[in-house]
Amino acid sequence: MTFNYENVYIENTSTIAGPYEKKGPLKDYFDKTFDNLYYKEKTWEKAETRLLNDSINLLLNKSFMRKEDIDLVIAGDLLNQITPSCFGVKDYEIPFLGIFAACATVTEGMIIASDLIDSKRAKNIIISTSSHNMTAEKQFRNPTEYGAIKTKTATFTATGAASILLTNKKTNLKITSSTIGKIVDYKQKDPFNMGAAMAPAAADTIYSHLKNTKTKVEDYDLILTGDLGKYGKKLLKEIMWKKYNIDLKNIHKDCGLLLYDLNNQKDIKAGGSGPVCSPLVVYSKILNQLKNKEIKRILMVSTGALFSPISLFQKENILGIAHAVCMEVE
Amino acid sequence: MTFNYENVYIENTSTIAGPYEKKGPLKDYFDKTFDNLYYKEKTWEKAETRLLNDSINLLLNKSFMRKEDIDLVIAGDLLNQITPSCFGVKDYEIPFLGIFAACATVTEGMIIASDLIDSKRAKNIIISTSSHNMTAEKQFRNPTEYGAIKTKTATFTATGAASILLTNKKTNLKITSSTIGKIVDYKQKDPFNMGAAMAPAAADTIYSHLKNTKTKVEDYDLILTGDLGKYGKKLLKEIMWKKYNIDLKNIHKDCGLLLYDLNNQKDIKAGGSGPVCSPLVVYSKILNQLKNKEIKRILMVSTGALFSPISLFQKENILGIAHAVCMEVE
Repeated sequence: MTFNYENVYIENTSTIAGPYEKKGPLKDYFDKTFDNLYYKEKTWEKAETRLLNDSINLLLNKSFMRKEDIDLVIAGDLLNQITPSCFGVKDYEIPFLGIFAACATVTEGMIIASDLIDSKRAKNIIISTSSHNMTAEKQFRNPTEYGAIKTKTATFTATGAASILLTNKKTNLKITSSTIGKIVDYKQKDPFNMGAAMAPAAADTIYSHLKNTKTKVEDYDLILTGDLGKYGKKLLKEIMWKKYNIDLKNIHKDCGLLLYDLNNQKDIKAGGSGPVCSPLVVYSKILNQLKNKEIKRILMVSTGALFSPISLFQKENILGIAHAVCMEVE
Repeated sequence: MTFNYENVYIENTSTIAGPYEKKGPLKDYFDKTFDNLYYKEKTWEKAETRLLNDSINLLLNKSFMRKEDIDLVIAGDLLNQITPSCFGVKDYEIPFLGIFAACATVTEGMIIASDLIDSKRAKNIIISTSSHNMTAEKQFRNPTEYGAIKTKTATFTATGAASILLTNKKTNLKITSSTIGKIVDYKQKDPFNMGAAMAPAAADTIYSHLKNTKTKVEDYDLILTGDLGKYGKKLLKEIMWKKYNIDLKNIHKDCGLLLYDLNNQKDIKAGGSGPVCSPLVVYSKILNQLKNKEIKRILMVSTGALFSPISLFQKENILGIAHAVCMEVE
């Protein structure tokens, strides 16, 4: 399901990145970084909540806006009942929509917001996402105290929060189209290979977007998946070629690989992941390049793995979903 | 944040209700009921997933539609990472948006869908929600084997699934306006009194909706909150009167009280709750009354308590949110 937009603009973004992310190649592009995963809070969950809260505050400051100027906040994260989003947003007293698409949350939020702005129902909408390496590890994998060994296909949940302000006021950065993805079941069961669960969904969404907008891979300077990692990226390339006869070329990059220096950051294994992974990359270096007209048009395809520890335990597959948003400079 | 709609219609609904719900006063209004909480599945989580899946299938059948006719499914539930929604929807291969607003999920979904239909981006959208007494008890409260004693203010999570098909094709049931609520923190910490956490949010949303649409309580035949229960209903009445000088009169009813016969169903305590609670009531008896023009205009104000067992354990408050949708007969 693909939409076109006439009047949706990016006013500004904010990025707060954690200790592993600031050791990566994008360190100079983030608005704010920090060293201690507790972020001055008593628990990791409270740290993630405060990160999301701070990213909204930072965005309001960067945009010279007050909370009263914002019509709506849309937010989501990985934790049970998206508590970092709910608790991180509450003090702003702005109408709120909670969403869940795992690591595809950010583009789902942008799609809902773009429609509300383009249909002239809202003027200013903030979309916020967060993830935290320790809250995610604790919830999805093993007690963090175990220090369990990771396989090479495992991804590393990024720590941080990122917000974007979409508006009806003209800027030179525009959201021009989007595609809502379907859930794709690739019969994947290994939580240490989520790239394989998400790559087929990314392929489905990219193919639908190209077809519905009558564009080709070459019409984009970058097609950026969210967090497929090294192995998921390769699988996506294969599926696109075998199933659709489409060559992604070097136009496709994966945010999970751009966020870190995989050669020197050994903890990262196959790449980064988490709802904050793709926005940390796109809102920092990529939108900067777009703003400066070094590149002209990108397709952001955030990718989510849909499962819970209980669904895994009950032998359900890990499902994938991907939502795409096209951003252009004018 | 309030929206008006010109061309959003209700095509049809489906309701599947569990053993406790079929003992209540609405038993004859449900499309389908069942007796065993396992619903022929091996686990309660798989039962909830299948309920959601079946409610979509039933809705398609009732509407003489195939899955290819549906542009989008929006779904959410109470479980971690909304797995009943993700797994329940996947086989339909329809574009999907996952949402989370606890028991206010259904109206959040209707608002997102109504905007997409009214702005002519989509023709047919299904919104689905589910809850299951045992999956919710297991996740939020105590191991079900404990058989823990409940306090009188505790609510009882309804079991079932419900779907609604919104469309741009004229029917005599119309969605005419909606209000997205803010998160309200009433400093409530008792998970056995969620009515108190949600009532202030319901008050805020009802007041905003009345103000923004320039309507009065008497302009509605019914103002239906989601699942405040006996004590939350009383608190809402008090807040509306003290804070806004608005008398809700007998126009306000709570779906958590309408779903069961509290005098004879002692397990239910203060009333029903869960994302399926308000749609089971509205999609059955209430929309029937509306369709038959016994009543003309209702305001459905589903109410959600935002928290997780971890947030409670870390001494965070239970937050409330409420989203409102106005339905009318033409």
